[in-house]
Order: sequence, then structure tokens, then C-alpha cells
Amino acid sequence: MNRPVPPSGPLGAARSPEGRPSYGGDEPIAAFATSPGESALTLIRCSGKNAVELAASVFSRPQKLREAPANSVIHGWIVESRGKAGTDGGTNGGGEKIDEVLAAVYRGPKSYTGEDGLDISCHGGFAAGRGVLRVLHAAGFRDALPGEFTFRAFMNGKLDLTRAESVMELVSAKSDAGRGHAVNRLSGTLEEEIRRVKNLLVRVLAGTELFLDYSEDEFETGGPEAAGELPERRLAEEALDRLEKLAASWAMEQLCREGALAVIAGRPNAGKSSLFNLLLKEERSIVTEIPGTTRDWIEGWLSLDGFPLRLMDTAGLRDSGGGPGADPVEQIGMERSRELIDKADIILYLIDGGKGLTGEDRAFFEKYGPAPRNPAASPGDDRPGKKPRLIILWNKADIVPAVPVPGLPGGDMPAVSARTGQGLPELIAALKTALAGIAGQETSSPETPGIGTVRQKDLIDRARTAVGEALALSAQGEPLDLIAPVLREAVNALGEITGEVSTAEILETMFSRFCVGK
Amino acid sequence: MNRPVPPSGPLGAARSPEGRPSYGGDEPIAAFATSPGESALTLIRCSGKNAVELAASVFSRPQKLREAPANSVIHGWIVESRGKAGTDGGTNGGGEKIDEVLAAVYRGPKSYTGEDGLDISCHGGFAAGRGVLRVLHAAGFRDALPGEFTFRAFMNGKLDLTRAESVMELVSAKSDAGRGHAVNRLSGTLEEEIRRVKNLLVRVLAGTELFLDYSEDEFETGGPEAAGELPERRLAEEALDRLEKLAASWAMEQLCREGALAVIAGRPNAGKSSLFNLLLKEERSIVTEIPGTTRDWIEGWLSLDGFPLRLMDTAGLRDSGGGPGADPVEQIGMERSRELIDKADIILYLIDGGKGLTGEDRAFFEKYGPAPRNPAASPGDDRPGKKPRLIILWNKADIVPAVPVPGLPGGDMPAVSARTGQGLPELIAALKTALAGIAGQETSSPETPGIGTVRQKDLIDRARTAVGEALALSAQGEPLDLIAPVLREAVNALGEITGEVSTAEILETMFSRFCVGK
Repeated sequence: MNRPVPPSGPLGAARSPEGRPSYGGDEPIAAFATSPGESALTLIRCSGKNAVELAASVFSRPQKLREAPANSVIHGWIVESRGKAGTDGGTNGGGEKIDEVLAAVYRGPKSYTGEDGLDISCHGGFAAGRGVLRVLHAAGFRDALPGEFTFRAFMNGKLDLTRAESVMELVSAKSDAGRGHAVNRLSGTLEEEIRRVKNLLVRVLAGTELFLDYSEDEFETGGPEAAGELPERRLAEEALDRLEKLAASWAMEQLCREGALAVIAGRPNAGKSSLFNLLLKEERSIVTEIPGTTRDWIEGWLSLDGFPLRLMDTAGLRDSGGGPGADPVEQIGMERSRELIDKADIILYLIDGGKGLTGEDRAFFEKYGPAPRNPAASPGDDRPGKKPRLIILWNKADIVPAVPVPGLPGGDMPAVSARTGQGLPELIAALKTALAGIAGQETSSPETPGIGTVRQKDLIDRARTAVGEALALSAQGEPLDLIAPVLREAVNALGEITGEVSTAEILETMFSRFCVGK
Repeated sequence: MNRPVPPSGPLGAARSPEGRPSYGGDEPIAAFATSPGESALTLIRCSGKNAVELAASVFSRPQKLREAPANSVIHGWIVESRGKAGTDGGTNGGGEKIDEVLAAVYRGPKSYTGEDGLDISCHGGFAAGRGVLRVLHAAGFRDALPGEFTFRAFMNGKLDLTRAESVMELVSAKSDAGRGHAVNRLSGTLEEEIRRVKNLLVRVLAGTELFLDYSEDEFETGGPEAAGELPERRLAEEALDRLEKLAASWAMEQLCREGALAVIAGRPNAGKSSLFNLLLKEERSIVTEIPGTTRDWIEGWLSLDGFPLRLMDTAGLRDSGGGPGADPVEQIGMERSRELIDKADIILYLIDGGKGLTGEDRAFFEKYGPAPRNPAASPGDDRPGKKPRLIILWNKADIVPAVPVPGLPGGDMPAVSARTGQGLPELIAALKTALAGIAGQETSSPETPGIGTVRQKDLIDRARTAVGEALALSAQGEPLDLIAPVLREAVNALGEITGEVSTAEILETMFSRFCVGK
């Protein structure tokens, strides 16, 4: 935890302007750290200047809380103070009891934020936590901004930006694979790798700049010594190699984090909702015999081989033409379905076995597939033009056995019955194959360093491009004073990833995407 | 916290039969104590024999955790052990890191359950907590049953049944009023009142039985001394008075806890969804121009004067007749609407100002109101035949001003516009009046003892009936040996409320209604 405190520039810049709360500063803040809901407990996190003192003013045993040693838990009641709180070791017994709580007391700098703080665990549900938070507000805490606890941890040198971002990744991890990769970054693997690569480049740069200093003194015009041979070229090459490996981890990391989107499509009554329910093994959408029943998409998550798969049921893609007889509600549903299909990584297209292949089915295949994803494009990217993987299913195989349809591209389509479960193993296998394809060739394990966020990816790409350019310039015999700035650009990009180089703006944008209480 | 340990009968009976977990015993248990969701933190509660030792076997600093003093917080990682965990003060460094956590360590009997235990706070979201729980299971914890932590707290004499039940009340409290009343019971007000009443009756009973002992020795047949005059009659009268007050608290307590159900009804397109949204001040149901858009009911909570109000939007009550042209999906929605209306405490009926009063509206009023709730019936009860309070609204008053309709019962109906918000204050006032009516005359404050659960209510009624009967028997000059058993029945009922008298069955039924992790 002995991280260098980041430069004070952004810290100063981020301090509160008059009135409106803003990132920075050490004002006492409080927020729910757990989801609302009918749970046993709710956790409220408090941090900042005088946090323990302020909490004591609304605690049934103020003196006990005030004197609590670091990392100790005190039992008591949060009370709504009636007038002045006891300050002389007495109790706040006169106030109305709001809830019975356990307060874990932390003392800076040995705390998550680096400040004094408390984790107050009160009863779950909606009312108890809200009551406690109301009283804490009255005592002087303000609502924490999204990510503000972690922002303070970063500012106080408790973690670098890659680890701060991994906290948010962890929270939104959809599968155990996603968790594993995020924990990997939380424990510092990416940070260490970035520092390693940066050190390689700094050594190259140091050699270059030393040489430049020397050459400026001794040579008037660029002789052969000032051009071409990059000192410690092999270090730059190693850096590039490591950056390429990091960049290649992106598809897998993104899949682990975001999951793939699989959309179930097909004509009305093809059995989409039944298949959706079967896959999620619970009744999630109403299944009836009436075309157009599923008006909106419905969502659920699956985990296949540790990869999160977001499954969406869609409204029937019926071409109702939009004429005077068209149902506008259903039209809205259909538009959303098309939007979803355009975003999908995988389309599960159901042919209604009872009706056989129709013109509508053929029209869909013409538009959406099946064509392999362009292998040159980075897998998992969101560029327009990416092709989803199409899995065609012959549904209702329990009633009408699958008929190989001449000219149909998906020759080996699984024959399933959403009603009986027939063909489900084959479908799952097809989904796993599709996911493996999206993950790409890179078989990064949770232990190897990988990129966790788009921000990191963009900066890695900047560094990678710069190092490649520096090597190319050197190969072309360009002078070192042209190459050095390019290398410096790479070093800066890497410094931005860990947060050594950052601006208030970048930080605010980053942390404001966190959830409140983090 | 010095509660007497309950009789060991039910404890023994509740112990695990072979294999299947059951309430009772001190097996190590673990469960989520907070709701799943994209939150900053997740809390996992552990309790039972060797809980700290077992947790240490999957903790990065096992020795530190093992030796942690009571009520201290230890920072570390949960690790998936690869083979045998370090037992000699080393680290579990070889395992895969699952998550970075804070573990608060509790030592029995000074803990919630009275056993050794831990609150492990790990990262929020779905994957981290699940990963930690998986590892805890591998270490020897089993899933806790619903309410099992509180069950153990009760069994270990940490709280009586009224306070155990108040924990669940608190968690499901829908409003600050509900929270206040539950906290009141949690702090022991009901328990104390029950014990006070019981002591009164025990004193009466003691006098009675002493007298009976004496009379058995001295008198062969019941003389005047053995009949009529109940010794310490005024104590029994005071007990009855206190029991009546408790019983009278029920309507208000139930309203605070459960809230009232208000259902918005009216013809299709009368503006129900718009009113619903207006009241909840957010877009909760799709509002379109198409009749039949709201296919299902949609729910939201309001808090009025501290009372929770559950507001439900319903599908249009169109009489589509069920003929061949009827839409079956809409029919399902309409059936649900009717069921809801039958359960409602309050109906907000919207007249479509654009159409004026129609035959359908009149048919509705004929069926549902307005007739005051039968004042003799206990308010808030669920007996068939209770009448909901009907509030009739003239909607779309921004387009068509309200027309007093001759013969319409709700003469002073508020004229509102769900679109513009006109008339909203009048509507809120009408809702508050209706709620006050449901709460009844009893103006119990959170500080006075009140009944929190149906179980308590039934037992209070049993005690109340018995004491009343005893007093009546005494007034009729019946002999004391007839009166004493009736009084004993009352004392037993009161003992059942606090849990001094209880069976394994009663306890299991009660605690299984709790949420897991509580």
C-alpha cells in the first residue's frame, strides 16, 4: 500500500468550489455501500475529517465511539439528537432511537480512503438505512458522490488508477471469470506490468537523451552516431512485445467483464419466449399462444464456461407494415428488437418447425448472416459493420422433425424443442463455440496481466503505436532527437494509465462512473 | 441482554436430523446479509462453532484472523485454498485470490447470535460475494436457513421473540413510521409491557392458588371465601386494561408496517397510468394513447404522513365480454385488476373527463362504493366483505372542467389533471384522510408499546379474552378453582408472545418467514 501520493496538481484543482460538492477535499461524506432491498443488513460508509466525532454525536455511546481504537467494532444505537449531544462521555440517551447498529471504526491513514471513517451496519430494508443516513446528514455528513471513497483512496496514495478501476470492474462483474480478472488487477498485476514496461522505455529514453546531450556538445551536425542505432533497442522491443500482449488481452477481458449479448429472434410464435425461459430455467416472460405477447425485450444472464452471456428475448419480428391497422405498441417493441439485433454478438434465430422456413426467415438470413466476423477486426469491438454470429435453430422439433432446407446456410443447425428441452445440450455447445470465437485466440489466464477498461485500452494503444513508430524511425535511420519525443509520448500514456500523470478532469470523469458508496 | 435462556425442550427438538439442515444446533453457517446488486460492498455473515477457525483457513492471514480479539476488523484476502491451509501462522498465499475483504470478528457470547462469528465485507456486485461464499462453503460453512442467525440469538437468550420479530419488521418496514414502531419493539417496549401484564396476572394467580391451597385444607365444600371475590381483582382489571390498549394498537401498527393498498381504477384511457406516474413522480409505466396499453398492474410506494401507501396501476377495466373478438392477454390483465380492487384499502377511481360519466362508471360505483367501512369490524383486517374507501376523481380537468354529476355519490370529488398536475394537492389530502381513517382512533406513538405481528395479535386476543372471562366468572360468584385455569391460560398466552413458552414447531414456522442472512 506504499503508493506514491499522486502529484498535487489535480488534487488542488478538484477541490470543492463554493457550495456545490465536488471531488477532492476531505469533507465528511456518507453513503449506502450496499443495495437497497429486503436484506438482513444495510451498510453505510462514512469517511472524512472528524467522521468519528460526527458519528459519535448521534450514537448512543458517544464516548465509547470517540475513543474506539482503529479497526474495532462498537455496538450501539443511532439516535436522533434532541438538542445538543453529550460531549462529556455521557450517553445520547435522550434522543429517539433510529436503529441498533454496529459501527466499525477506521483511523487514517490505515483505512480504505486513507481518512478516518466508519462502516455502520444497520438493519436492512428501506426504512432503517434511510433513517440512519438522514441522522448522519443532520450530524454533518454530506452524500458521497459516485466513486468518491475510491477517489479519496487514490488521492491519498492507497491505490493507483488501474486498481481503482478494478474495484468498479469487480462490482459489475457478471461471472466468476470477470471477477477473477478484476481481482487480478485489484491485486496489482496490471499496475506492475505497466510500471515494468514504463521502466524499460525510461531506460531507453535515458540512454537516448544522454546520447543527445553528449552529441549536442561534441558534434555540430548529425554524424552516424546521432542517427539510426537506438541505444538499448532490445529494451524497446521487449516493451513493444509486452504492450502487444496487453492489447491482445482485450477481447477476452472485455468478454469476461461485459459478457456477450445473445438475442433470440424469429417470427411470432416461433417459441422465442419458451426458449428464453428454458435457457434461464425460470419463468421470466409470459408465454402464451397469442402472437405479439412479448411486447418488450426481457433480459437474463447465463454463465457458460465462466463467460457471462446476456440473453434477450425480443418481440416477434412480424412485418406489420406500419399501415393503419398496425398496432403501435407492437411497433415500438419491434423497433427495439431490431436495435438489439444490431448490437448482438450472437443471434439465436428460431425457425418455427410447425410452419417451416418462410420468406420472412429467408429475408432475415439475407440481412444478418451467416458470415464469419471479419477476422482482421479486433474481436469484441463495437465498430459499425461487425457481424453477429448467427445460430439458426429448428424449433418445435418434438412436433415436426427438422427438415434440412436446401440453400439454408446453417446446415448443421441444432433441432430443438423449447417445450420439451430436446436439443438443449447441442444449443449450449453451439453457444460455447460462439463465445470461444468472440474471446479470440488469446488464452489469458486470470494470473497474466490484462486490460480492464476502455480507458486503459486506448492508452495502451497510444503507447504501442508510439513505441512502434520510434522503432520504425530508428530503423529508417532518423535522428534520435526525432525519436525521443515519440518515446516520451509512450511513457506519458503509461503514466496516465496508473494515474501518475492525470488531470482533475480525467479523474472526475473516471470516478463519476462508479457507483455511490464505492 | 441478560435474557433467560429459553427452556431446552424446543432447542433439543429443533436440532438437525441426519443430513438435512434444520434450525437448532451450532453448525457453522454463512449467508449474504445484504441484497445482491451493483453496490459497493456485499456483507456475508458467518456464525457457529469454529467459525473464525474455518474462515481463517481461507484467509490470506490465517493466524492474524485466528488471534483477532473480539469486535476487531482484519484486512486481508479470501483465497481459494490449494491443498492444506497454513496452520502455523504462515499465509495462505498459495491460493487463488477471490476477493479483498474486511472481516469483523465476534466472539460469543458477546455477539448477535451469542456464538463466535464474522461479518465479511467483500466487494459488491454478483460475482465477488458468490465467489467468497463458495470458498466459505468449501471451508465447512453451510448455507444459513432463513432467520437462522436470529433464531440462534433467541435460543442463546440474546433477545425474546417480540424483539426477534421486530428485526424482521424493521427489515420490511416501508416507511419511517414503520421503522419507528419496529425499533420501539426492538428496544424492548413490547417485551416489557407483556412482562408487566404477565406479572400482574401471576400475582393474581398466586393469590388465587394460595387461597385454593388453604381452602382445600380447611374447607370441604366451597364456602363464601372460596367463591366470588378474586384476590387482587384490581390487578386483573389493570391487566385487562393494558391488554385492551395493546389490542387497540393493532390497526395503526398494521398500517405502519404493511401500508395501505391504493388501486387506481377507471375505464381505458381515463388516465390511470398518467396519474400513477404523477403520484410516483417518475415514469414507471408506459403511457400511450392506445387503450389496453397497461396490461399488467404496476406497483410503487408512496409515503404520506409517514404512512406507507402501496399504489397500483391497473389495466383498463374494459368490458370486452370474453367473446371471440376479445384479447386474451388483456383479459388476464383485467382479472388481475379485479382481484386487486377486491383487496384494496383505497380505490382511486378516475372518471374520464373527456367522456363524462358512463354506464361503466356507474356500474363500478354500484358494485364498489362508496359506503364507509363497517366501523364495527377491526380496521385493516382482511375479512371478506370489508369495503375499500372509494375516492372518485374527475380527470382531464385541464380539458373538460368537472361537471357535478347528479346522483353521483362522491359529490366533493377532486377535479384533477393527471397531465398537468392540477388538483394533486386535493388528491393527496383525500388520500391522507383515507389513511387516517384506516389507522383508526388510536393515536399510538412510537414510544408506546404496540403489537407488531399477527402472531402477537392472536395471543394478545387470547389473553384478553381469558382475563375478561376470569373477571366475569368472578363477578358471577364462580369458585376460584374454575377461575384459576382461565387466568393460567392468559399467562401462557403472554409467555408464548415473548417465547418463554414455545415449541420447536412454532419457532421454526416463525423464523422460516425471515429472510436469509438475518
